[in-house]
Amino acid sequence: MTVKNIGILCSGGDSPGMNCAIRAVVRTAISRGIQVTGIKRGYAGLLRGEFMQMNLSSVGNIIQRGGTILQTSRSPEFQKVEFRKKAVDILRAQHIDGLIIIGGDGSFNGAMALWKEHQFPVVGIPGTIDNDISNTEYTIGFNTAVQTAIEAVDRIRDTAHSHARTFLVEVMGRNSSAIALKVGVCTGAENILLPHDKVNHQKLVDDINRGIARGKESSIIIVAEGPVAGRSYDIQHVLKDMYHLDAHVAILGHIQRGGSPVADDRFIASQMGNMAVEALLGGNVPSVTVVQKGKVLMTDLANCTTKADHNYIEYSGLAETLSI
Amino acid sequence: MTVKNIGILCSGGDSPGMNCAIRAVVRTAISRGIQVTGIKRGYAGLLRGEFMQMNLSSVGNIIQRGGTILQTSRSPEFQKVEFRKKAVDILRAQHIDGLIIIGGDGSFNGAMALWKEHQFPVVGIPGTIDNDISNTEYTIGFNTAVQTAIEAVDRIRDTAHSHARTFLVEVMGRNSSAIALKVGVCTGAENILLPHDKVNHQKLVDDINRGIARGKESSIIIVAEGPVAGRSYDIQHVLKDMYHLDAHVAILGHIQRGGSPVADDRFIASQMGNMAVEALLGGNVPSVTVVQKGKVLMTDLANCTTKADHNYIEYSGLAETLSI
Amino acid sequence: MTVKNIGILCSGGDSPGMNCAIRAVVRTAISRGIQVTGIKRGYAGLLRGEFMQMNLSSVGNIIQRGGTILQTSRSPEFQKVEFRKKAVDILRAQHIDGLIIIGGDGSFNGAMALWKEHQFPVVGIPGTIDNDISNTEYTIGFNTAVQTAIEAVDRIRDTAHSHARTFLVEVMGRNSSAIALKVGVCTGAENILLPHDKVNHQKLVDDINRGIARGKESSIIIVAEGPVAGRSYDIQHVLKDMYHLDAHVAILGHIQRGGSPVADDRFIASQMGNMAVEALLGGNVPSVTVVQKGKVLMTDLANCTTKADHNYIEYSGLAETLSI
Amino acid sequence: MTVKNIGILCSGGDSPGMNCAIRAVVRTAISRGIQVTGIKRGYAGLLRGEFMQMNLSSVGNIIQRGGTILQTSRSPEFQKVEFRKKAVDILRAQHIDGLIIIGGDGSFNGAMALWKEHQFPVVGIPGTIDNDISNTEYTIGFNTAVQTAIEAVDRIRDTAHSHARTFLVEVMGRNSSAIALKVGVCTGAENILLPHDKVNHQKLVDDINRGIARGKESSIIIVAEGPVAGRSYDIQHVLKDMYHLDAHVAILGHIQRGGSPVADDRFIASQMGNMAVEALLGGNVPSVTVVQKGKVLMTDLANCTTKADHNYIEYSGLAETLSI
Repeated sequence: MTVKNIGILCSGGDSPGMNCAIRAVVRTAISRGIQVTGIKRGYAGLLRGEFMQMNLSSVGNIIQRGGTILQTSRSPEFQKVEFRKKAVDILRAQHIDGLIIIGGDGSFNGAMALWKEHQFPVVGIPGTIDNDISNTEYTIGFNTAVQTAIEAVDRIRDTAHSHARTFLVEVMGRNSSAIALKVGVCTGAENILLPHDKVNHQKLVDDINRGIARGKESSIIIVAEGPVAGRSYDIQHVLKDMYHLDAHVAILGHIQRGGSPVADDRFIASQMGNMAVEALLGGNVPSVTVVQKGKVLMTDLANCTTKADHNYIEYSGLAETLSI
Repeated sequence: MTVKNIGILCSGGDSPGMNCAIRAVVRTAISRGIQVTGIKRGYAGLLRGEFMQMNLSSVGNIIQRGGTILQTSRSPEFQKVEFRKKAVDILRAQHIDGLIIIGGDGSFNGAMALWKEHQFPVVGIPGTIDNDISNTEYTIGFNTAVQTAIEAVDRIRDTAHSHARTFLVEVMGRNSSAIALKVGVCTGAENILLPHDKVNHQKLVDDINRGIARGKESSIIIVAEGPVAGRSYDIQHVLKDMYHLDAHVAILGHIQRGGSPVADDRFIASQMGNMAVEALLGGNVPSVTVVQKGKVLMTDLANCTTKADHNYIEYSGLAETLSI
Repeated sequence: MTVKNIGILCSGGDSPGMNCAIRAVVRTAISRGIQVTGIKRGYAGLLRGEFMQMNLSSVGNIIQRGGTILQTSRSPEFQKVEFRKKAVDILRAQHIDGLIIIGGDGSFNGAMALWKEHQFPVVGIPGTIDNDISNTEYTIGFNTAVQTAIEAVDRIRDTAHSHARTFLVEVMGRNSSAIALKVGVCTGAENILLPHDKVNHQKLVDDINRGIARGKESSIIIVAEGPVAGRSYDIQHVLKDMYHLDAHVAILGHIQRGGSPVADDRFIASQMGNMAVEALLGGNVPSVTVVQKGKVLMTDLANCTTKADHNYIEYSGLAETLSI
Repeated sequence: MTVKNIGILCSGGDSPGMNCAIRAVVRTAISRGIQVTGIKRGYAGLLRGEFMQMNLSSVGNIIQRGGTILQTSRSPEFQKVEFRKKAVDILRAQHIDGLIIIGGDGSFNGAMALWKEHQFPVVGIPGTIDNDISNTEYTIGFNTAVQTAIEAVDRIRDTAHSHARTFLVEVMGRNSSAIALKVGVCTGAENILLPHDKVNHQKLVDDINRGIARGKESSIIIVAEGPVAGRSYDIQHVLKDMYHLDAHVAILGHIQRGGSPVADDRFIASQMGNMAVEALLGGNVPSVTVVQKGKVLMTDLANCTTKADHNYIEYSGLAETLSI
């Protein structure tokens, strides 16, 4: 069956660069004579029939914008088989014959179900700042989130240094270590606490004190948020109560999700959007665009429906060597 | 008595642009044939005799750097008369015959005491991101903190809009309204909660809901931190528990203190550093550099030893009109 | 006559913050129950009848955007009396009974003629990066242009320092000294060449060589573009041919016109847009919003129809003292 | 022979991230108990014996700084065999028994000669914004230069759009296409002119006019500088003289070389500095750190002594598809 009208939606958390992917999908499709229908607010919007016809103007001047013009949401309903049936009925009524989903592993699970249950052609594009999807080295938004966090830590270093202070800087990424490790290496952090690390407060304090003895004016400890944001406050209290060490806390939070996408997010998203359309048109479904060995390419969607924390773990040793 | 050797120190919280003031002091003094002695870590460092001779190279390539190369601290000891006596003895032993203090109203109180108790010539330069010193329209660091907060809110707006969410964004400034009001107007915030506002949760929820009814995709509420940081969490809980309204919290925190100073902080600090030296040399002490009617000029130090929240309060009405 | 429908246009060069002024005009007017008609592409678009009805959504999410959503242009036709007659006919046919013009002194001349020839109520808002309009200390866009130039010079300093080089950095502003002086002071430039300065190459070379002798690793010379951009190349050639001194040239150019407006451009533009509407509604015409003694207020439009280079000239001495 | 004292220098053009590599070299070496001697101003400084002992403090707080603390230069003398002999004598007299060179293919040629003529152990680290060295997908500084150019083009787009204009934006990279192609894709440029492209002015004009006919408000054409900077002016003149099309020119120039390094430049430079030390200590010489298939690894230095324009050429088609 030939695809003549592609639906596109964003699902789950937003990430910078999603607009670049949308733009690339629309432009590639139009250059191939194919229609594109934007679906607002993810699977939830799909179930409510929130469609908008996309043309070249719809994606004009958006390449540099954070967030997503299609908006996004999480849809608990879509986890139920009857709502997925309804979604496919709506798509077919709208004459949409292929669907591109920009999101994370959860969103890809929903897409996979559409294919398995209804043979509805789907292609995924990995979009999440967490960089935690199996079988891809990169997810759209990761480098922008890292860059935002780096610039924030650079600022915090100014004030930490001016006051000879210790800072616990908590970065996003839930159970993924990627943001914490990359930010830690890139800012010369004195310590990095990974999501599942049981915090060794004694070692932390020893490291800080050794730095001070050596003449360091400040210490920055990058804390991966882990399952629940705010663990930095717990660490702060232990340092204070048990070791009489004053540490300041900075939770970087949602500033890491927004902002104009940096070069790689624009560049990789542009390639992915382009390839996703080609995959749909070529019948290469269900599939997903990934980065492997530094290149953007297609793989089976089934490879990307689980989380994995594989991309930066290998750099733990480097982080430690450089933080002496 | 002619001044031949100027001491300079930073005191209290650091703020972006302090380095520009230090640079201007050193360069102006040297162009006038006067020595400058840097005193590290504020009054505390003075009491420990932490001096460094300043020359043109000491202040080379620092105009664009956040924080302060002299570092800063708070010194409870300095509030006692015997330690101020000791400080003057140390200054005189070091042949320092005039002192420039970059800091806030508290630091100026210490300086005033040096003058009153020992006739030690002092000149203040207002440096704090809070913009809360009486009789000056500006304090060094304010605009950089505002700019950093604005860029953070712009980012948060991306993600708020993509998810149709409400955000409580807490900005620094303790009891000062200045940062909150300027950031609120400059980001088109839907609401601004000032430091001493008793929060009217019902009104807040009504405003948010009216915005949604009108088609707004997101709401940003700027929260001035007030005496204790973290009040946004309290508001969040009330909105959730009493009104079933989900709001996200972002505490901008210490990123607002660091970073390369923006134009006005560099420009005003450069003028202030220059004038402070001229005042010391001209015997115009005790005095302080201020901004009045848009111009940098000198006034009596006694005018600036209290806090005031006078600079942006008049813009509350503007903020409300533009946030409809 | 009561104003019920306000026309708004941008004219001349664009500047960052124009969107904030447009937003403030629309929101203030709507809060007062008044209609706003956007006129695209300045006076030229007015003559072609390019109108768009403005509502709250038209100005949603634009406060942070560079350029102007109404676009702008220069219109030679509008300098002729018969075309101004035609413009007023068009405005009246459109039931527009007051006009807000965002632009420079040239645009204000056109507005003044509309008033004089047809008693058409007009209010000006000064918008140009050049900060060169008589009787106002500020024009919207100036600080963003300065900030962009400062960040560019900070970057150039990195490479200049790494190579021990001299750079001629040409900034915008035509015959206005304001950008060059503020950027020069804020970047610690070794020299600033103002628009009408006859370049003293010998002195320039002596200054550079004295810096080198003193251990300076690099020299940055800020060159105001003056009437014709590119004079830095001429200076470069003379330095090379007559003094065997290699200098690199960087023409910052149009990057200074764009970008997200910095805090003050947003803040002042918001006040000006608000006041401009109040002036029109209050019959205070022909008038213009200005900054005087650090405050935004209204003055007679006739005060702002000429250029003036008055705002930063007084800082030449400061620049020289600090560049030793 | 065991290496106990590593010399390190930067050579050729500076690039952002060089400081991160220096920092990683120093910290890795010290953690292994090895000395590091910094050599200032490249091969020229080596010949003049400009050495500085490096310790942890030497590389404190430099990870975020553009340029290179060791400075750099081009040394025509070093192309002669007798001066290389002299250099090795100086190195040995200084008890330096291994050399790390951060630079481009030219610098690596010099390093290769040191090895071939004197068996002096050398390791290269590719540092140039041009990304034009054979057998590596990445060179330190490339992404920062690209990011700086992207942000500049985003700004120019604001003003281009506000005036409905065409801009020729010239980016650095000499004969390399990499910056131009990546910037072009990432900014949605309407056209990209590669270094060796013979400009087809007719096609350029047709493309611009087709865009206008389709409702585009502005056109951005990215021009790779090629062998001599300034070719945009030639194109501008032809467009004006032969096609009566007004285009503005922006030469981004040296702002692309400076600035705080973005995430990948910090991250890759940190890995490369670390690996370079390990290679020297392990006797893996002459070698060079490269990126292949997305990973940092070592290869024979001989593989990287020539230029190649291989890394982004494959994206020309993508650029064309997305610029319709």
